[in-house]
Amino acid sequence: MSSTYGKNIQISIFGQSHSEAIGVTIDGLPAGIKIDLDQLQQFLDRRAPGKSKYATKRSEADMPEFLSGIVNNITCGAPLTAVIRNRDQRSKDYDHLKDCPRPGHADYTAHVKYKGFEDLRGGGHFSGRLTAPLCIAGGICKQILEQKRIYIQSTIVSIGGNEEHPYDEIEKAMETLDSVGGIIECTATGLPVGIGEPMFDGIENKIAQAVFAIPAVKGIEFGKGFEMAKLHGSETNDSFTYVENQVQTKTNYHGGILGGISSGMPVSFRVAVKPTPSISRKQQSISYAKKADQDLTIKGRHDPCIVPRALPCVESAAAIALYDLLLSALAKGEIREEYR
Amino acid sequence: MSSTYGKNIQISIFGQSHSEAIGVTIDGLPAGIKIDLDQLQQFLDRRAPGKSKYATKRSEADMPEFLSGIVNNITCGAPLTAVIRNRDQRSKDYDHLKDCPRPGHADYTAHVKYKGFEDLRGGGHFSGRLTAPLCIAGGICKQILEQKRIYIQSTIVSIGGNEEHPYDEIEKAMETLDSVGGIIECTATGLPVGIGEPMFDGIENKIAQAVFAIPAVKGIEFGKGFEMAKLHGSETNDSFTYVENQVQTKTNYHGGILGGISSGMPVSFRVAVKPTPSISRKQQSISYAKKADQDLTIKGRHDPCIVPRALPCVESAAAIALYDLLLSALAKGEIREEYR
Amino acid sequence: MSSTYGKNIQISIFGQSHSEAIGVTIDGLPAGIKIDLDQLQQFLDRRAPGKSKYATKRSEADMPEFLSGIVNNITCGAPLTAVIRNRDQRSKDYDHLKDCPRPGHADYTAHVKYKGFEDLRGGGHFSGRLTAPLCIAGGICKQILEQKRIYIQSTIVSIGGNEEHPYDEIEKAMETLDSVGGIIECTATGLPVGIGEPMFDGIENKIAQAVFAIPAVKGIEFGKGFEMAKLHGSETNDSFTYVENQVQTKTNYHGGILGGISSGMPVSFRVAVKPTPSISRKQQSISYAKKADQDLTIKGRHDPCIVPRALPCVESAAAIALYDLLLSALAKGEIREEYR
Amino acid sequence: MSSTYGKNIQISIFGQSHSEAIGVTIDGLPAGIKIDLDQLQQFLDRRAPGKSKYATKRSEADMPEFLSGIVNNITCGAPLTAVIRNRDQRSKDYDHLKDCPRPGHADYTAHVKYKGFEDLRGGGHFSGRLTAPLCIAGGICKQILEQKRIYIQSTIVSIGGNEEHPYDEIEKAMETLDSVGGIIECTATGLPVGIGEPMFDGIENKIAQAVFAIPAVKGIEFGKGFEMAKLHGSETNDSFTYVENQVQTKTNYHGGILGGISSGMPVSFRVAVKPTPSISRKQQSISYAKKADQDLTIKGRHDPCIVPRALPCVESAAAIALYDLLLSALAKGEIREEYR
Repeated sequence: MSSTYGKNIQISIFGQSHSEAIGVTIDGLPAGIKIDLDQLQQFLDRRAPGKSKYATKRSEADMPEFLSGIVNNITCGAPLTAVIRNRDQRSKDYDHLKDCPRPGHADYTAHVKYKGFEDLRGGGHFSGRLTAPLCIAGGICKQILEQKRIYIQSTIVSIGGNEEHPYDEIEKAMETLDSVGGIIECTATGLPVGIGEPMFDGIENKIAQAVFAIPAVKGIEFGKGFEMAKLHGSETNDSFTYVENQVQTKTNYHGGILGGISSGMPVSFRVAVKPTPSISRKQQSISYAKKADQDLTIKGRHDPCIVPRALPCVESAAAIALYDLLLSALAKGEIREEYR
Repeated sequence: MSSTYGKNIQISIFGQSHSEAIGVTIDGLPAGIKIDLDQLQQFLDRRAPGKSKYATKRSEADMPEFLSGIVNNITCGAPLTAVIRNRDQRSKDYDHLKDCPRPGHADYTAHVKYKGFEDLRGGGHFSGRLTAPLCIAGGICKQILEQKRIYIQSTIVSIGGNEEHPYDEIEKAMETLDSVGGIIECTATGLPVGIGEPMFDGIENKIAQAVFAIPAVKGIEFGKGFEMAKLHGSETNDSFTYVENQVQTKTNYHGGILGGISSGMPVSFRVAVKPTPSISRKQQSISYAKKADQDLTIKGRHDPCIVPRALPCVESAAAIALYDLLLSALAKGEIREEYR
Repeated sequence: MSSTYGKNIQISIFGQSHSEAIGVTIDGLPAGIKIDLDQLQQFLDRRAPGKSKYATKRSEADMPEFLSGIVNNITCGAPLTAVIRNRDQRSKDYDHLKDCPRPGHADYTAHVKYKGFEDLRGGGHFSGRLTAPLCIAGGICKQILEQKRIYIQSTIVSIGGNEEHPYDEIEKAMETLDSVGGIIECTATGLPVGIGEPMFDGIENKIAQAVFAIPAVKGIEFGKGFEMAKLHGSETNDSFTYVENQVQTKTNYHGGILGGISSGMPVSFRVAVKPTPSISRKQQSISYAKKADQDLTIKGRHDPCIVPRALPCVESAAAIALYDLLLSALAKGEIREEYR
Repeated sequence: MSSTYGKNIQISIFGQSHSEAIGVTIDGLPAGIKIDLDQLQQFLDRRAPGKSKYATKRSEADMPEFLSGIVNNITCGAPLTAVIRNRDQRSKDYDHLKDCPRPGHADYTAHVKYKGFEDLRGGGHFSGRLTAPLCIAGGICKQILEQKRIYIQSTIVSIGGNEEHPYDEIEKAMETLDSVGGIIECTATGLPVGIGEPMFDGIENKIAQAVFAIPAVKGIEFGKGFEMAKLHGSETNDSFTYVENQVQTKTNYHGGILGGISSGMPVSFRVAVKPTPSISRKQQSISYAKKADQDLTIKGRHDPCIVPRALPCVESAAAIALYDLLLSALAKGEIREEYR
């Protein structure tokens, strides 16, 4: 239980920020699927560190090595495992944290849960770095969905509340040794009607379960989400209509999901990303040894805002969830054969 | 796959709005736990229909019959199953819907997914009525948590955007043959530090997966959630401090969860509930037979606002998720023995 | 964890021998499948008590009531739940067992595991009676497989080691107030090549996991099983050959399974059923209260041999396992579409 | 679905015989467990190839590299991943098999299931080589159990039916370019009473599911297994008795398991291992291209008998199953705290 996800495909993510490697196993992929490794690398590059002036300086290639599951870039039916070596660790940057947990991080909760045996270097298994294997799995699922003409993409809605010039807020945060949060919107188009299971395995349930694997995510809403809580049914009920013999809705307050099941309209959701908890300003924390409050200044390299790098992570969470549910619908013959 | 949830305990919910019965099986409950059936009934009464002027008139006793798993109100280690008979169905109210899906409901998506074999009477398996067995399971988990001094409660934050006089908005919606949405806040106190698993099985992941089983929920945020997306790290990082030799945080932007794991602070989250999709006003839908647009006026009994009745459902989702995770932490010895 | 099985379909069995009811939920059945309830009843009658002079006298109708999941005998996509009321309990027959566990039963192990809170009446959740809901689920899966021309049937190989006149051994056991074991062979024909997953979810793994849910089963072997342990590869390797353009093997030592995957040859396995542990002879047991040895004479009604009644149970285990794996193969497009 | 096993711990095995690497992830291990890597290596050496004259000549070090999950040989709570590089592949040995499946292997079934995209080099994911990662996981679980004074060991009962001089049969098989099967017995001692769940997750179910992951296993029996099918209840019912205030049984026909739950007596089971399907003799197979029968002579390196090397594999299957069930019992407080 924990870093494993899915039913028809099972994703198992492993590694710590400063362990030998991080990686992922995807069990259950059909055989015969061509993986475009260049395209996958481009996808991974979108979340890689060191790519822009707004991102942490840790500069790893983050090129996955495929240990199993593909032969000549084609899935062979066996579990697919890919790993990324951790090369550029500066573990000493974290030595002073052993006694003093960083606010907003999992340092303290992991310390209690794992009784001091946790790997705290770089955040260990709780590091944002673990989203790299998430993106390997997600990038592969995204490619498979694209082969079925199902497309997932995400955009930045706002950073620091600024919708018009979001990146200005990152600049400001950098200047003040601070960090800033933001909102991402993700959309999946091309889904057939009928994907998603009732109750606990609806699209909302499964995307939400996957999205909260991204460390900084603190909220998710589907369709018009929280805005719907202010409105009336006459405003939010999306009217059905026929357009060229196809059923559509005139509006999409429901975000493409009714009863947990895809309606054929674009599946859309928004995700709230909190500010990077690592900031260079002095913060107040505690000393376990002294059992007293203590100031903390975090060294090391940190993103002032992880929202840009979180985009492929959010797409990955959606891709994994939707592909797993698509397989379930195929098993039961609920969608057309062409989606195989 | 679908109406099943959990690892250490497994919840399996069954039934349709107008089938013989609805119910739930909870597999994996430890033996020797006393269930207070009166208290459970009071909990169920909070979501039962026909209890207030704001709720649907369908007046079922909604008293669960326990088929297995308890002897003299004490769990015996075997799977616990409880059922509620469906007595007051007026199936004919739904006859005219066979050809014409209700906007905002699962009628259309279920129709396509299940190829016309779905049980559309009263919304079938997608009915809000299925939250009754959810509350049986949740009410039991809530009692067990209370025996460990872990308390879950929820309140209405706003209805129709009105935080001060939320119920006024329900009155207004009734008068205009409309419905209205709202926001619920749920808080769990008394949790030990160390509950929740990394990545896919954190508290956020598991509560979110459970909460979206409630039909009208369209969004969830933990701690300060979407508000954090507008703020800076220096504002949202909760400082650690010692209070009487206990670690606490001075603020609770993180909502009691860091890295998916409980921090000892209250776990808090908010849920967006959309307006009841069934409204008495004329709406626009389609006719499958005619392949054309068609007006629809929904008969039958409907809540103008399901927010009040959703409170115990949200608490149930939280209770199930937290109890399942607590068992996982106990298995690994991560929390004190007294939480057994 | 425990009484739940399967991935694409999830079987959840509940009830105790003397609880209000026993039953089963099958989650994940495709919609639109016609269930022949008469045929199902005939299947259940094969395991029902009181049907022959060799079986226990407890005479329950064992007619399932369907609470959900079917409309007009056709699956509707929602979880299917069926229950059988327990009517003819003589709980007092078991009063004297509270202090004195029956040899060969789960009385003692359940007593320790569940700390005295177990429902020991009639064996509780460990009773052979719980194979009735197993047969409901199995009978339904068997019907679905038959609609795809996949047939499962079982026969008695021997009772008490007697292959020629097995029933003579039951007579002898009855006369001597004893019981007797036996061996069942089960065969599935018509399976397409390609069902079964590698390693932990092969056909052998999944049938074995299901078969050991039948209380008295103590062994299973596939194909020539234990006999192969005495032989050479040149004797047990089944040669491939083309017969009318179809690949077959000339012999079937492998029991239709290679690498966990169906080969197209009949899947065959044998199951060892131990003698019914309840016998009328005086046996030696213990008194918990006295912490001392104590004689025990079991009253109540018991089968001298459960092998005949176990036949549909073994078929059920096979049907559930194979249907679940068939759905998995369909999800991945590994078998022809006609098996949907 | 497939190469994943377990609930409280989840084992995910990956790799093909000739892929870059093979390996395993164990998710859910408690933090703070010391792993003795030397002892683990010795355990792995028992199944390694090239160690004796009876085993295949492929001589790989089979030393696992730990990518994550341990720090200074102590588990840190994060998923543990270990890999073994495949260095000594002679892929060309398998080229001639592309058109001609080996009898007794998964070549044909994998070819159909995976539509020709399977990795057939060396048996791919179906190779006995994949028992190396099984043994990594099993060896770790075995060590953890030993720290709780639970011991698992296995012995050879017979090879080729020869109980007295089993290794003579291997010599004979080698001389005749043949292979030979055998029987292994495995015993677990020191288990507390109360481990194992009813129905589908009993000890028998879970060990059987794990054991059949070993490619050549074709049968399993618990306690007296198939012999019990010939006997009477009066012979096979194990009498309870008090020995020094502890409940024991006088005999152990039940193999330490009653109702799927450990009784405190040694858990014992036997496994039937078929003869290695790869033999050097000419065999009859088919040509896919010609759609006709064709002779086959297998080159490459093969064990004449895998029974000796299967011993640690069988122990591994038992260790994984029992440790997973032990965690489940701990979660529910069913066994004493000292077993944590």
